[in-house]
Amino acid sequence: MPTFPRTPRNRVSRLPDRARYDREAIYSIVDEALLCHVGFVDDGQPYVIPTLHARDGDAILLHGSVGSRLLRHLAAGNPASIAFTIVDGIVLARSVFHHSVNYRSAVVFGRGAPVEGEAERLRALERIAERLAPGRWSEARRPNPRELASTAVARVAIETASAKVRAGPPKDDDEDLALPVWAGVLPVELDFGEPLPDPALRAGVAAPGDLRDRFRRRGG
Amino acid sequence: MPTFPRTPRNRVSRLPDRARYDREAIYSIVDEALLCHVGFVDDGQPYVIPTLHARDGDAILLHGSVGSRLLRHLAAGNPASIAFTIVDGIVLARSVFHHSVNYRSAVVFGRGAPVEGEAERLRALERIAERLAPGRWSEARRPNPRELASTAVARVAIETASAKVRAGPPKDDDEDLALPVWAGVLPVELDFGEPLPDPALRAGVAAPGDLRDRFRRRGG
Repeated sequence: MPTFPRTPRNRVSRLPDRARYDREAIYSIVDEALLCHVGFVDDGQPYVIPTLHARDGDAILLHGSVGSRLLRHLAAGNPASIAFTIVDGIVLARSVFHHSVNYRSAVVFGRGAPVEGEAERLRALERIAERLAPGRWSEARRPNPRELASTAVARVAIETASAKVRAGPPKDDDEDLALPVWAGVLPVELDFGEPLPDPALRAGVAAPGDLRDRFRRRGG
Repeated sequence: MPTFPRTPRNRVSRLPDRARYDREAIYSIVDEALLCHVGFVDDGQPYVIPTLHARDGDAILLHGSVGSRLLRHLAAGNPASIAFTIVDGIVLARSVFHHSVNYRSAVVFGRGAPVEGEAERLRALERIAERLAPGRWSEARRPNPRELASTAVARVAIETASAKVRAGPPKDDDEDLALPVWAGVLPVELDFGEPLPDPALRAGVAAPGDLRDRFRRRGG
């Protein structure tokens, strides 16, 4: 099913013309965002934690220490809300009121479950590692049994989701168009700088020539 | 009191050497982050919503439509958790396990309350607008009574908070240092591009010369 039904949980109530409910739009945001923010409830108290992620079909994969409150909470099957936010520009209008941000944001809702079994866990960690740092699963030393034992992996099966997108120039009121105030959009994107070698880097080991290019598709 | 006491709610349990509890460290992250993610609970379900913010002493100011679920929820005095996350670099280690992100993240906990009274509301909106787009409160047309009536403003008084910071090169295991794998940090920052004028811009209105420079201190 390519589109999520609109329910009270995922419906975008404000500015509904910015809403998207199709998997293609939602998952392209999930896949591009550098990180996500996971919301969960513990004893009535809301928590929000930033973390790395990967998508596996209709599920979000998350990892952390086996002692992490978030991972233990997800492994216990509790509900989570996960937000993915990419900022594309600052919208400068002639009126303060119409100032805004060009953004693509997605939110998914589901329940956590542990990822178990060495092969499944390795596969999940590969997806998360490759999303953070493409190519490194092949270049770097892979997890050993001790590292695997200290890492928890959770899967949040996506029950419903939605996205909200704003793009384009400011939308001022007609009566403001003649004001002598500059209006437009200041584009925003993530910039990846020159790689800084580890001071302890072994002599003669060069950075992969395409290192920065591998990251250029990330936003957030 | 410059430092927040450590309680079960704000204590950083994983990698406690990365934790900060002093207002200076926490508020510098809050003030630099381009946006925040607000977590709240409605009928047992966690929600996370990205939004703009400003700080006013020991409180976070948020705004939105009077019809917004988030703003109505905060105005009703419900608890919220607000995360502010700035990514500074991708940490590439010799082992997949030690790959990481250099980041500064803060989370604050408190309860919402409506900001009421025209002067107070205007002052809050000025802080939010000036944080998003410095200088625009003076340059652009200020909110009129109709716009003010359609905007809800909430204040979340910070009860407790913490921050978590990672900086510096990868921390590989000693036995991996001799591996012929490049290791280091790929710096990440927000880049603000050339301003794109609104196609409907009045002829002869130039962009302020310092427009991009005003945003250079933002991260997120």
